[in-house]
Amino acid sequence: MSKEVSEEGHSHHHGKDYVDPPPAPLIDMAELKLWSFYRSLIAEFIATLLFLYITVATVIGYKKSDPCNSVGLLGVAWAFGGMIFVLVYCTAGISGGHINPAVTFGLFLARKVSLIRAVAYMVAQCLGAICGVGLVKAFMKHDYNTQGGGANSVAPGYSEGTALGAEIIGTFVLVYTVFSATDPKRSARDSHVPVLAPLPIGFAVFMVHLATIPITGTGINPARSFGAAVIYDHEKIWDEHWIFWVGPFVGALAAAAYHQYILRAAAIKALGSFRSNPSN
Amino acid sequence: MSKEVSEEGHSHHHGKDYVDPPPAPLIDMAELKLWSFYRSLIAEFIATLLFLYITVATVIGYKKSDPCNSVGLLGVAWAFGGMIFVLVYCTAGISGGHINPAVTFGLFLARKVSLIRAVAYMVAQCLGAICGVGLVKAFMKHDYNTQGGGANSVAPGYSEGTALGAEIIGTFVLVYTVFSATDPKRSARDSHVPVLAPLPIGFAVFMVHLATIPITGTGINPARSFGAAVIYDHEKIWDEHWIFWVGPFVGALAAAAYHQYILRAAAIKALGSFRSNPSN
Amino acid sequence: MSKEVSEEGHSHHHGKDYVDPPPAPLIDMAELKLWSFYRSLIAEFIATLLFLYITVATVIGYKKSDPCNSVGLLGVAWAFGGMIFVLVYCTAGISGGHINPAVTFGLFLARKVSLIRAVAYMVAQCLGAICGVGLVKAFMKHDYNTQGGGANSVAPGYSEGTALGAEIIGTFVLVYTVFSATDPKRSARDSHVPVLAPLPIGFAVFMVHLATIPITGTGINPARSFGAAVIYDHEKIWDEHWIFWVGPFVGALAAAAYHQYILRAAAIKALGSFRSNPSN
Amino acid sequence: MSKEVSEEGHSHHHGKDYVDPPPAPLIDMAELKLWSFYRSLIAEFIATLLFLYITVATVIGYKKSDPCNSVGLLGVAWAFGGMIFVLVYCTAGISGGHINPAVTFGLFLARKVSLIRAVAYMVAQCLGAICGVGLVKAFMKHDYNTQGGGANSVAPGYSEGTALGAEIIGTFVLVYTVFSATDPKRSARDSHVPVLAPLPIGFAVFMVHLATIPITGTGINPARSFGAAVIYDHEKIWDEHWIFWVGPFVGALAAAAYHQYILRAAAIKALGSFRSNPSN
Repeated sequence: MSKEVSEEGHSHHHGKDYVDPPPAPLIDMAELKLWSFYRSLIAEFIATLLFLYITVATVIGYKKSDPCNSVGLLGVAWAFGGMIFVLVYCTAGISGGHINPAVTFGLFLARKVSLIRAVAYMVAQCLGAICGVGLVKAFMKHDYNTQGGGANSVAPGYSEGTALGAEIIGTFVLVYTVFSATDPKRSARDSHVPVLAPLPIGFAVFMVHLATIPITGTGINPARSFGAAVIYDHEKIWDEHWIFWVGPFVGALAAAAYHQYILRAAAIKALGSFRSNPSN
Repeated sequence: MSKEVSEEGHSHHHGKDYVDPPPAPLIDMAELKLWSFYRSLIAEFIATLLFLYITVATVIGYKKSDPCNSVGLLGVAWAFGGMIFVLVYCTAGISGGHINPAVTFGLFLARKVSLIRAVAYMVAQCLGAICGVGLVKAFMKHDYNTQGGGANSVAPGYSEGTALGAEIIGTFVLVYTVFSATDPKRSARDSHVPVLAPLPIGFAVFMVHLATIPITGTGINPARSFGAAVIYDHEKIWDEHWIFWVGPFVGALAAAAYHQYILRAAAIKALGSFRSNPSN
Repeated sequence: MSKEVSEEGHSHHHGKDYVDPPPAPLIDMAELKLWSFYRSLIAEFIATLLFLYITVATVIGYKKSDPCNSVGLLGVAWAFGGMIFVLVYCTAGISGGHINPAVTFGLFLARKVSLIRAVAYMVAQCLGAICGVGLVKAFMKHDYNTQGGGANSVAPGYSEGTALGAEIIGTFVLVYTVFSATDPKRSARDSHVPVLAPLPIGFAVFMVHLATIPITGTGINPARSFGAAVIYDHEKIWDEHWIFWVGPFVGALAAAAYHQYILRAAAIKALGSFRSNPSN
Repeated sequence: MSKEVSEEGHSHHHGKDYVDPPPAPLIDMAELKLWSFYRSLIAEFIATLLFLYITVATVIGYKKSDPCNSVGLLGVAWAFGGMIFVLVYCTAGISGGHINPAVTFGLFLARKVSLIRAVAYMVAQCLGAICGVGLVKAFMKHDYNTQGGGANSVAPGYSEGTALGAEIIGTFVLVYTVFSATDPKRSARDSHVPVLAPLPIGFAVFMVHLATIPITGTGINPARSFGAAVIYDHEKIWDEHWIFWVGPFVGALAAAAYHQYILRAAAIKALGSFRSNPSN
């Protein structure tokens, strides 16, 4: 109760005061018999659809207007970050609120979801993204095509390597925030710091957009990049499309490794090279 | 305590750990004898009045200024979303904090409010909206008339069908967020994720405005559209006014159906076609 | 636990589940012997100083720059709202976090603070405001004088009556939010809706600035208007200065009356004209 | 339960209802044997790296674009404040989430961290900042050099004294918020006001940037200023660099003294000159 946010190292708890859930099985056929599994897929599909619809409509509306008479690039960044906040809030209790194959990949690596669930989520997310961008094209046909279709690509003046690096670090920021926000240790020990997980996750997305819209338009979500690429369907977009899968997946891998091996110290504890504080 | 946000499917609770309140009666004459019923109407009236006053004043102030010397379209979107956050926060404990006939309609469909209460709320909201816009006209008479009066209409280059679609999906985002935020299941099971309901609801409104101000000015609230139409009173506005009732009500219906039949799985459970997880 | 935000009227609690603190005495000489009383005054002084320093520096920085190369009017509105969020958060536990004579006046009317405390707070707030604006003038001397000094006045094209009305309604929004956020009934009954009081209070200030900066620059805080008037010291500012005391105090009075007589229903209960729900 | 936010002086608790953690030892050699100590350093290093990477990339992206086609200065201010929100949220449970030598210095003065930990944190933060800015330079080489490198310096028209004053007060706002947010008294007594510490801390940073970007570019974080100075490496930057260490450290000292001697009243209680309320 009286523990300081800033004094984690002085904890007087001996023994774990939280329970790590058991790792998700790699293949869990029993999931396929549960209605909750299919409901999760529907929720991911709908959430990704709404995410792409709102954000790409904002992008096209911004690009077609006189810049000073639009919501501006800042409004575009808000649209991406704010929708993630709203949708993670709405779907966290149903599907976990991934809405992003890179997040699903990171949580799969940490054994939070099974392989079957991870693959199914990614398919649902990509289908939802295609439908969401499709709706924008249906609503704004002419402007959609002339204003770049909300697709991710490498901006002039930047190399593919830089774009890949920007996607890796950007996704690292997002997936690191997701891991921090959903850590069971946090819930148990820092219970006086309420875990309002969706808000920092949404802000992480907002922040990365502020920084990297000028470089790649900011992917950090392969479903978002894939949906726009399918509907816009230009050659340059497809040529560079690998960046928006490889970058986010590498970033998610790095964040998962950082969280599991450094912050949760699984590796070090196993090696026994330090006498680590048992409650940490 | 140790349950992961992302592992909803692995719940070990058997049996419901929450209580669904009984459905509201369709007609509840006893309500009419309660002071709390009339107090709710007053709260909805005042909240909708303040909502329209602040937002329409922001719109007129933005339109009359040099765009670079105003709060910008982003400021307009914040005004709508931020006021909903503040007013839902203030009135949630009094009236439920609807401030929008589409929200009231959605909650009526889900049997959260009685028919009498729903109709009375809508009347209070529309009267409040008229008074709020009336205040703006009283304060800014000349500018109010020359700058479009804050009324919703179909922007040039868009069809009525597109406008209707945008209103439906926009209201779906809002009412889906309202259902997610007020779900009793969430309170009971995700108690380590604090339910700060008004903030995501306000953000949902903010997001939809970022996306659809260029299409319809964004209604997603029939009282808001009606109040501005009554005070501005132009023919084009009235001709298209049906869109701003039909769209939001269809969107609210879709969100209520999605929440009740898919996410809460009422229909599927009734059919018994899946052996659903009893705690879900 | 399972109570719906939207079903306040169906409460099954019989008897009050919260305790109203006793009204503050009008004159409480014992307060004067407590260190905590003087500490509260220091906290109000410092908080109002920081509020005016940050906000007026933002205003002057905005006005002296090319509008497209500044934080914009939206940034100015954020400065006022965001500082109130931060400072109410920081000082709520020390002094109650008023930082505004209109808020102090409203809480005095509701008998939440004694007359002695109310007057002392207002003096501390006004002195803090003068020092805060004084710092800005010391730092930005030339720009401070040429850019209007952050003072409130009636904008060209608006009458004094309109300005007064805008101040009354704007302060009503703020003080109504303060009452809603600090209602003991809320803490007890809506405990599943966390009371993050400072955030909606800050947003209320942000919203009112979006709407009324074009009319009066937005006062809704007599200390803020007074501090800038003292340091800027121009005749037009002093001529209209009464608006920025009368408006906020009338708005606070209206909000206090609305909260006490309508929402808390003190008057109606006393009259006994309705058989009101005993738990409401 | 029924205590008002605004009535702190009327507390009925007799005796402390919270526990002050014991002061951190000045030199704690035992820390050096704990894995959690090194993990904290890694977390501070990574967080400061990500902070500088995102914020300086936003600054360079903003400066190289047409102002109306960028995220604007408001977006820059959001990048600094929003990243602090996200990163304090993510690292609070690991290292305390300082990400700023001035914050570490303030918490050291208040005996919340040992001298060894304080020095090690500052080294980790400065190294992280250098790497973060280095990444931006690697990604945006040409633009990085031509657009000022995100370094802090005194803007034309301001004296060094003014810049120093702006840094002192700005850091005071930040460190005062940190102390308010992490006060154990707050956790125990105001438990109905949830302590969402990272959000007001992030907002404090956002606010200070709104006000002082035109004066110094806003340091209030010596690691941020140092990292950009090392990578940009211009003579004017180094000549003025002392301001961005002395200012923040003096501001942190003032905030620590204000919190400990005025708000927590340690000095007065020791003197016994007032009969202070024992529960305050």
